[in-house]
Amino acid sequence: MDAAQAIAAPKPSIDALMALAGPDMAAVDALIREHMDSPVPVIPALADHLIAGSAKRLRPLLTIAAARLAGARDDSCLKLAAAVEFIHTATLLHDDVVDSSQLRRGRVAAHLIWGAPSSVLVGDFLFARAFELMVGAGSMAALEILARASRVISEGEVLQLTRSHDLDLTQEVYIEIIGAKTAELFAAAAEAGAVAAGASPERCRALRRFGQDLGLAFQLVDDALDYSGDAKTLGKNAGDDFREGKVTLPLLYAMARTGAAERDFWQRTVDRREQTEADFDRARELMGQTRALDDTLALAARYADSAKAALADFPSNSWRPALEDLADFSVARKA
Amino acid sequence: MDAAQAIAAPKPSIDALMALAGPDMAAVDALIREHMDSPVPVIPALADHLIAGSAKRLRPLLTIAAARLAGARDDSCLKLAAAVEFIHTATLLHDDVVDSSQLRRGRVAAHLIWGAPSSVLVGDFLFARAFELMVGAGSMAALEILARASRVISEGEVLQLTRSHDLDLTQEVYIEIIGAKTAELFAAAAEAGAVAAGASPERCRALRRFGQDLGLAFQLVDDALDYSGDAKTLGKNAGDDFREGKVTLPLLYAMARTGAAERDFWQRTVDRREQTEADFDRARELMGQTRALDDTLALAARYADSAKAALADFPSNSWRPALEDLADFSVARKA
Repeated sequence: MDAAQAIAAPKPSIDALMALAGPDMAAVDALIREHMDSPVPVIPALADHLIAGSAKRLRPLLTIAAARLAGARDDSCLKLAAAVEFIHTATLLHDDVVDSSQLRRGRVAAHLIWGAPSSVLVGDFLFARAFELMVGAGSMAALEILARASRVISEGEVLQLTRSHDLDLTQEVYIEIIGAKTAELFAAAAEAGAVAAGASPERCRALRRFGQDLGLAFQLVDDALDYSGDAKTLGKNAGDDFREGKVTLPLLYAMARTGAAERDFWQRTVDRREQTEADFDRARELMGQTRALDDTLALAARYADSAKAALADFPSNSWRPALEDLADFSVARKA
Repeated sequence: MDAAQAIAAPKPSIDALMALAGPDMAAVDALIREHMDSPVPVIPALADHLIAGSAKRLRPLLTIAAARLAGARDDSCLKLAAAVEFIHTATLLHDDVVDSSQLRRGRVAAHLIWGAPSSVLVGDFLFARAFELMVGAGSMAALEILARASRVISEGEVLQLTRSHDLDLTQEVYIEIIGAKTAELFAAAAEAGAVAAGASPERCRALRRFGQDLGLAFQLVDDALDYSGDAKTLGKNAGDDFREGKVTLPLLYAMARTGAAERDFWQRTVDRREQTEADFDRARELMGQTRALDDTLALAARYADSAKAALADFPSNSWRPALEDLADFSVARKA
């Protein structure tokens, strides 16, 4: 390979997937617009602020791609995909209230504009709308999957709230938290698409596993980017987790691999959350020295490989490589 | 009628209804206990705090009674009734965060013990559990009714949040708000019971109207009790609405019926919420002079009569008079 070819070597991209799913996603977008409407003006205004900020809509994309890979010929997956985006948006609204976040998707967090009460209630509206959309899709099996996912997400959020400031958090509990709060919706999004397509139980399970592993990879990368990214690319502030004293895998690795000399630093900055401006840079430095971010990304890559392996028994139509690209992209992305 | 008989004349009571529904409600209670469980300990603790405080469980009672009046022979209404109580409890948890309420059902509000974040997330958990229970009940029609109700409730809450501090609120918008935030769940609870029983569309509509009118009566009485009740009987502080500057029908009547001399009083206490200890008593005095509470209760009584009229075409089995008692009770109650 010569230098020009090396430069031209393609980076992981979801362009092919976006092109394949384009017509379906345009229909999903129309459903989203239609169902966020309400005679109460604050509701569409607040919902639009958040929903318009979402460029990729990965979760509904997963529902569409899983349904089409599994051979869906009708459009029942479209309403489920819109429902998945509404569930996700509702949890973001509530999360930002719970975490007092400042930025989301490159915009000022909704609760800072409309107030926390409106964010809580519009989250409830979107959650209810999600179930109305699911009823419209008419699949009790898909409803069961997404109702269960909604419950598991809330359990993951409460677990995170009560445990994630704990310096003694284990990697096992961390994976349990991100499995529930993030990967469960990816898993359910893919499984619901497969179910809507009338796929066999084995294929439904395989697509669920693809979503689950993709979601874990996605959240691990998110947690690494919170230390390595910058606000402009991320659409939210880097260092949020550190400032909130939220224990994620990069921090667990760094704390475990630095000696007694740093114990006071972690106790002060993470446990007691007494931080100066320079502390975040010091934390990043320690992560570099301990390879905490590299190893977090390496684990993400393993989950992405496991996700791709789940697709092994599917026919190699154009959707399968596009979903494999999605797994690679989730690890390589910078935002 | 002699004096002794007059004294012994029965007050409206739901004892007969409670006795009839006793075995069903015990089963609903068991479902509630079972489904509020979670491996995340905060969730059952917080849910139990609120759910154990509910003595009457009027909304699930309505689902059971509507189903049995409509001839339900199986137990599919039980899961729907538990789902209705979970939806109600979820909205209470979020409401208390939104309103910063201090007391609920005679207990310190959950968010003051576990924090607002946990209240928001456990509300989400209960809401999701409600949909899991509905999936278990297996009726897509009941799911549609309760998903729609959940959405309408959130719209009513946002409408209340944005409009109810407005001195120029009209009686029409006030009725729209309480119709959405309260009466909709009563309506949906009754209709879902009827649907689960396989009742005719006419009977489903009639039971929906019963629930709707009962709910309006119920909320009007609630709003009157906020001026006439005492905290011990109410299980929450009297005067909360006034202190929050929440414009309800008693206040609308009193403001419309007092002259220019009182305009400054209402502007200061309700609009600007600048209040002294004595202001609530002054407001109650003005309500007495203007018959604001009497007329609110008279309107509640008219809705209760309309609710009873909706039952006219049902066979007069033991459930029908018991539901008529419920309508009378909703107006006569002191808490």
